[in-house]
Amino acid sequence: MTKKIIINDVTLRDGMHAISHQYSVEQIAELTQLLDDSGVDIIEATHGDGLGGSSLQFGLSKESEDDIIRTTVENVKNAKVAVLLLPGVGTIDHLKNAHNLGAKVVRVATHCTEADVSEQHIKAGLSLGMDTVGFLMMSHRATPENLLEQAKKMESYGAETIYVVDSAGALSMDDVRQRVSLFKENLSTKIGFHAHNNLSLGVANSIVAIQEGADRVDASLAGMGAGAGNAALEQLVAVMNKMEISHNVDLFKVMDAAENVMKPMMVRPVQIDRLSLMLGYTGVYSSFLLFAERAGKEYGVDPREILMRIGKMNAVGGQEDWIIGIAQELAKENQMT
Amino acid sequence: MTKKIIINDVTLRDGMHAISHQYSVEQIAELTQLLDDSGVDIIEATHGDGLGGSSLQFGLSKESEDDIIRTTVENVKNAKVAVLLLPGVGTIDHLKNAHNLGAKVVRVATHCTEADVSEQHIKAGLSLGMDTVGFLMMSHRATPENLLEQAKKMESYGAETIYVVDSAGALSMDDVRQRVSLFKENLSTKIGFHAHNNLSLGVANSIVAIQEGADRVDASLAGMGAGAGNAALEQLVAVMNKMEISHNVDLFKVMDAAENVMKPMMVRPVQIDRLSLMLGYTGVYSSFLLFAERAGKEYGVDPREILMRIGKMNAVGGQEDWIIGIAQELAKENQMT
Repeated sequence: MTKKIIINDVTLRDGMHAISHQYSVEQIAELTQLLDDSGVDIIEATHGDGLGGSSLQFGLSKESEDDIIRTTVENVKNAKVAVLLLPGVGTIDHLKNAHNLGAKVVRVATHCTEADVSEQHIKAGLSLGMDTVGFLMMSHRATPENLLEQAKKMESYGAETIYVVDSAGALSMDDVRQRVSLFKENLSTKIGFHAHNNLSLGVANSIVAIQEGADRVDASLAGMGAGAGNAALEQLVAVMNKMEISHNVDLFKVMDAAENVMKPMMVRPVQIDRLSLMLGYTGVYSSFLLFAERAGKEYGVDPREILMRIGKMNAVGGQEDWIIGIAQELAKENQMT
Repeated sequence: MTKKIIINDVTLRDGMHAISHQYSVEQIAELTQLLDDSGVDIIEATHGDGLGGSSLQFGLSKESEDDIIRTTVENVKNAKVAVLLLPGVGTIDHLKNAHNLGAKVVRVATHCTEADVSEQHIKAGLSLGMDTVGFLMMSHRATPENLLEQAKKMESYGAETIYVVDSAGALSMDDVRQRVSLFKENLSTKIGFHAHNNLSLGVANSIVAIQEGADRVDASLAGMGAGAGNAALEQLVAVMNKMEISHNVDLFKVMDAAENVMKPMMVRPVQIDRLSLMLGYTGVYSSFLLFAERAGKEYGVDPREILMRIGKMNAVGGQEDWIIGIAQELAKENQMT
């Protein structure tokens, strides 16, 4: 494949979740230098929940937003620095500030059915002259056709690249293929894909996305990211090399950075365990877990059965009160069988 | 997909490598009961290198071959017990003994270009009335066409199922697709696929194999197996369920067995690290590693460069003497550039 795939590293942003937003500026500087030297095209650095994310609600970060962005900008020679912006969490003022600090890319992220809320933020990114990306989170929650409709909105606002974001690691390879190929046929923008590894398909899904026409993919050193982590950069690059997919990253350098620097920084191993596998399987938010466990105990049903039924109901955050009803329903069904 | 895929568990055989062949009969009994109760179709239990493998050369197992097989047989209610047989390591006498102990499946394994050596052993398995499988190891080392030639030999000896075995975890999804689809078009046998996870494609490659017509796939609890491990059974089953691929395994039971029983038994985490990734990337035997490191130090070249060049030369075990020449060559090339 002759087209060069752009690698957007998320070690410092999605990886923030895995370290409870506690990277120090020294760690940020070291990781940035290694990533930049390895040839990564874009390095995203923000609180895990984006600009303005440092709060009691989402978790306070160790360093200020300004220090996170400034440190990253000061330590790149070639890579562009990106910030994540969830409208509602972050504002256009946050974005202007990030731009002043040297961020060149903004990824405006919304739930996959709420692209409407991205209009002003996408336009703000464009008016600042930034590389402006639409980022459709929890993409498994929309049919390919509905996801395309939402992407069309982002395209109409001016987004230059639009991402299929598999926030829960819940997409199969066929699911990715359908979504990315539909984007490719119907959008004039560039296309991106962001994987999580809950079903152990992070690298495979990224490869499928590239084969279906994606221009950008996300990855992180040793998979450093929320839940089961993202596609591991060094694994993705190894597979891309084997498959002769063109890119700018030096495999040995990212292998060394992952093993010698990233892994020793981890406060817990980023891996697929029963919990993260279950989240990928059911595609639900982690906020439901505790409620499902309590209701499961109370009504004598496996909490995983509850999660599965919630997954089928396409619940989003905030609908935890459904759980009692579901648990009662399941208990009744179990008695009958 | 309405065809039921047969799951061949290798926790007790390939997993033997990851525990240095030290499973106790108590551990074997516990794992067997859990696997059998979860609905796994076939449980393979042998030394990691198959019948007769317990030796100073390949590593002594904690329990005798008879005790390993007997314990597994005594603890299954529904699953069939399989043994692995590498002609040269194990003999037809070993196979007869395993059959007497209650093994119902034999997998006769050869290097992917040496199917000839399997003839007598396949015929012995058939004459014992066993479910007899040909197992083509290191399948990345043969072109799809050459691999088919070898499979045709096993078919002519009577093998009822023939496996593409990705021993080094070195096959991409496209590589798997090509090999399994060629088998499907040209063989009248059933087809199997055995994954390793070095490139993090273990589950994805197994799914591709199924989509191309494979009838059986291997997996193990938490991926317990040599190197980066096999396809993790609980992850594979989760993805199969999501994709509506039919099989006999209970997801929650294998999730619990992996988390509560298998992981606490591990003496080291089965995961993708720099070393196992490099083996998958280059597709070489681990026996080359130490030599490459020594020669790399002596001649001032990255040992990974040496491994890559060896991989391209399709070296098999026993050709470690090539390494000095390669290191000298690389050192000379590096001086010129």
